Amino acid sequence: MIEDQYRIPREEVHGRIVRLQQALRREGYDGLLLTQNVDILYATGSMQTGYAVIPAEGEAVFYVRRSLTRAARESAVRTAPLGSLRGFRAALERDCPQLFAAGGGRTLAADLDTMPAQTYLRLLEALRSGEAASAPTLADGSALVRRVRAVKTPWEIARIERAARIVSDALTEALNDLREGVTELAWMARLEYELRIRGHIGMMRVRGYNQEIVTGMVGSGAAAAEPSAFDGPAGGRGLGPAAAQGVSGKTFARDEPILIDIGCCVDGYVIDQTRTAVIGALPDDLAEAYKRSEAILQAARRRMVPGVRCSALYQEALRLADESGWPEHFMGFGADRVKFLGHGIGLEVGEWPVLANGFDDPLEPGMTVAVEPKFAFPGRGVVGVEDTYLVTEGGPRPLTCYPEGLIVLP
Amino acid sequence: MIEDQYRIPREEVHGRIVRLQQALRREGYDGLLLTQNVDILYATGSMQTGYAVIPAEGEAVFYVRRSLTRAARESAVRTAPLGSLRGFRAALERDCPQLFAAGGGRTLAADLDTMPAQTYLRLLEALRSGEAASAPTLADGSALVRRVRAVKTPWEIARIERAARIVSDALTEALNDLREGVTELAWMARLEYELRIRGHIGMMRVRGYNQEIVTGMVGSGAAAAEPSAFDGPAGGRGLGPAAAQGVSGKTFARDEPILIDIGCCVDGYVIDQTRTAVIGALPDDLAEAYKRSEAILQAARRRMVPGVRCSALYQEALRLADESGWPEHFMGFGADRVKFLGHGIGLEVGEWPVLANGFDDPLEPGMTVAVEPKFAFPGRGVVGVEDTYLVTEGGPRPLTCYPEGLIVLP
Repeated sequence: MIEDQYRIPREEVHGRIVRLQQALRREGYDGLLLTQNVDILYATGSMQTGYAVIPAEGEAVFYVRRSLTRAARESAVRTAPLGSLRGFRAALERDCPQLFAAGGGRTLAADLDTMPAQTYLRLLEALRSGEAASAPTLADGSALVRRVRAVKTPWEIARIERAARIVSDALTEALNDLREGVTELAWMARLEYELRIRGHIGMMRVRGYNQEIVTGMVGSGAAAAEPSAFDGPAGGRGLGPAAAQGVSGKTFARDEPILIDIGCCVDGYVIDQTRTAVIGALPDDLAEAYKRSEAILQAARRRMVPGVRCSALYQEALRLADESGWPEHFMGFGADRVKFLGHGIGLEVGEWPVLANGFDDPLEPGMTVAVEPKFAFPGRGVVGVEDTYLVTEGGPRPLTCYPEGLIVLP
Repeated sequence: MIEDQYRIPREEVHGRIVRLQQALRREGYDGLLLTQNVDILYATGSMQTGYAVIPAEGEAVFYVRRSLTRAARESAVRTAPLGSLRGFRAALERDCPQLFAAGGGRTLAADLDTMPAQTYLRLLEALRSGEAASAPTLADGSALVRRVRAVKTPWEIARIERAARIVSDALTEALNDLREGVTELAWMARLEYELRIRGHIGMMRVRGYNQEIVTGMVGSGAAAAEPSAFDGPAGGRGLGPAAAQGVSGKTFARDEPILIDIGCCVDGYVIDQTRTAVIGALPDDLAEAYKRSEAILQAARRRMVPGVRCSALYQEALRLADESGWPEHFMGFGADRVKFLGHGIGLEVGEWPVLANGFDDPLEPGMTVAVEPKFAFPGRGVVGVEDTYLVTEGGPRPLTCYPEGLIVLP
């Protein structure tokens, strides 16, 4: 029996479908095919596997591979068994005849940024199987989906706020055990325990291919500044080549920065927050770099109002980093720097918008953006801060709720 | 500084490349393009992002997007910066001219089961950009990669055995806190803590699109028997539609089966093990079903020798499940049953071979197979067992090391 508080309200899901359909019509697509679990959750209220099809006009259908039993209970849109791929073409033609036309010409946008090529090729073949009316072509609808998902509803924001409170509470609890001589791994285990018992689902979903997050990274001194495959300003030494980011077996030491870049996922929604801690005191230059990161965050925060271009916020941060005297250390070091200041969060880490060059769209009310200025010093550590804000007409409202400032431990 | 014990030995990686090249030549491919992080780790010794190219003859090259610094330190094959996709074509033609021919006709196998369609389409376009010699076509090399990875080396087996010991130790420790009234979630948090401090990287990788595992599932009574999107015999109620598998907020009760299907990932390698526990005693029929699951495991174990077809092991299990009187409950219930008895494990959960119809290849020495007969009873629970074995000429050698049998708690 699914507990009622966990069910996503029907009107919430229906509102999302309305917005997806508006975007489809605006961009000239005839429908949307979603295959990724998170996209499917967003558009149906259920995270079972299969294909969700949302025509630009008309009723959405969730063709379920597994588990149909569960999807039928959870989904706010009609469910149907997926069956074989060949059967999918026939079912789609029956349910959504508007996607088929004698001469072709219909286009179905799809989440091609996540859908495996093997699935894509098999779907193409199935759709083109010899039936009377021509099947729609598949187009890359990733950007459309990401744009719609970027603007959150009040229901979604409430979930993100709950995740933020859990991170704050868990961090407060775990900091009691952050001591010299404790390994990063052991302390992370402690923190993850505190997150998990409060409802963290045990992972933070991230959209990018090959990107992985458990609960973020905790890195101290030199270990924090080691670069990684993760698309963020601080990688972390990790636990060897097979887990080459995040916590390592290094023990915490006095007077070195400890970067605590963590989050959790509750009811599907993530939060992202960074604090810098130190046992003792930071060296003067790193203390100064830390203050610069706070100043860059505050500068971004002052400008985070609807209408401001995301790229402008990034460029302003680059200018302030130049002024700091450490431009080569901003958002990573040297060739390993990342080229953004912040990113959307929601069902996934790394949603849109991205505060980066090329993202010239304006901020909109309802966007939830993690801003994370950091300075990396190879061999010494990473300092920085990150808070997540909701963009509102009245300015940014912080969603992260852990107190601001450097965490100084005795 | 990367710690030496974490580095994957050069000769280990070179041996893998030799086997991949033998498979390429046997199957008539000119080379292999790997894009997925786990495949790249396997073939280079580093899990940074980019493309690893292994020609059927000649030297492999790892074109690294991020982090080149780290990849250069870890990789057993030559690294080069990936740069732009357009530049990738030129670099590939320079480094691997044997993949290009004036009239075309060369074929590059690739991991299309994981590579996103968007990446696939961009790669195709980049490879076809107007140069003198024709670029190779991309073919689906997923099966080739999975077949090669299915047979483990002694170095890999030692890592899987270490993961197995950690699961055994962590479970032993956490069972001290498995009590009536404790929630599945709270106990899982406790177990995950024990796994993590022993080196679990915090996630178990799984290859299938949209498949997720944190550390497996712990499910008690009715909650265990709820079906899920996860391709396994027991889903678990989970924590709502956004985490619709595994542990829930249900509390453990007396005399109900508690399914503990867990693993961990250490140095990149996973282990998979299931035990059934009960506080008190199982009802007679579930106790009988549990015994049947043990008998099916033992029957499979007796036949797990090189040369036996994987599908034959599955069919034998189906026959025994029929004899048990609960065929509709075997490997899930009704429409939610899964159609396999076991699966390979290694860098990922759900590797090859699969003990299922259609897998008619014979078992080979070096394969590591988790065998997991289970019976699901909606509203009552799931009983079953799972051990992982190494296939050897002398018969199966257990890799899981937790004691066999029902776990009975007072």
